[in-house]
Amino acid sequence: MDLSPDWVVGFTDAEGCFHVQINRHRQMSCGYQVLPEFVIVQHQRDAQVLHALKRFFGGGSVRRNHADRMCLRIRRLAVLERVCEFFLAHPLKTRKNVQFRKFRRVVRLMLQREHLQPEGLLRIVRIAMQMNSADRPRLREVLRDIQQRARNG
Amino acid sequence: MDLSPDWVVGFTDAEGCFHVQINRHRQMSCGYQVLPEFVIVQHQRDAQVLHALKRFFGGGSVRRNHADRMCLRIRRLAVLERVCEFFLAHPLKTRKNVQFRKFRRVVRLMLQREHLQPEGLLRIVRIAMQMNSADRPRLREVLRDIQQRARNG
Repeated sequence: MDLSPDWVVGFTDAEGCFHVQINRHRQMSCGYQVLPEFVIVQHQRDAQVLHALKRFFGGGSVRRNHADRMCLRIRRLAVLERVCEFFLAHPLKTRKNVQFRKFRRVVRLMLQREHLQPEGLLRIVRIAMQMNSADRPRLREVLRDIQQRARNG
Repeated sequence: MDLSPDWVVGFTDAEGCFHVQINRHRQMSCGYQVLPEFVIVQHQRDAQVLHALKRFFGGGSVRRNHADRMCLRIRRLAVLERVCEFFLAHPLKTRKNVQFRKFRRVVRLMLQREHLQPEGLLRIVRIAMQMNSADRPRLREVLRDIQQRARNG
């Protein structure tokens, strides 16, 4: 199955999700791991579309999501960089573009390794808090914790 | 907002619905009205995309669906004919294409005015029964009723 750029934009406008998770992680220098991911969920009957999207972006993994749903999940930073370059050159037409632009700022900060410093990590958490999928009460706690650690460390 | 054909295909692969409703209608010669419709639902923040799709297909109406959802609904046969021509020239990539092909058979039968004769109407009901959104127990009753009427009339 060959996908054209415009088809990928249209399909992502409808089904794509840009998430930024921030998880507690003892081995990370600031105590937290930043996990940006680009996700598309489909009924298993259309798993072939997810595999075609995986080939299109040159990475990611297609797995079962839950019940009869399959999921393409892209987490590797090098692949996410390509995803971001693609949607910068071929802009989303829905309001999802606003989410994408926040997501892209996070990916760029990570490529510059800013997430390994308290100040960069705080910038990322603040961007993540503005995203649709954000668990804001939890992220506020994360923010306070990082600030506390930076003062103590 | 300018939409390209491939974007429209990608977006429809994700969000488009092809329905065929068959409703009791005393004034129709066979006692039933066939209502094919092409529907796309979006959050109200992306109502502009629905208006752009309406312009793209040259018809349909954009209205509130429920709560914060808006809906483009195309019901006019002349516009549905254009919709069908478009998706025939630019095929859907997901299994939704199977639904579309059944939908297109119904639209073609209606353009040939077959739905006004019992035999044509029965063919349409049988196609509608094979569609994902079908209420099969109800359509089986409709089928029996049309057959009964044809025998009596």
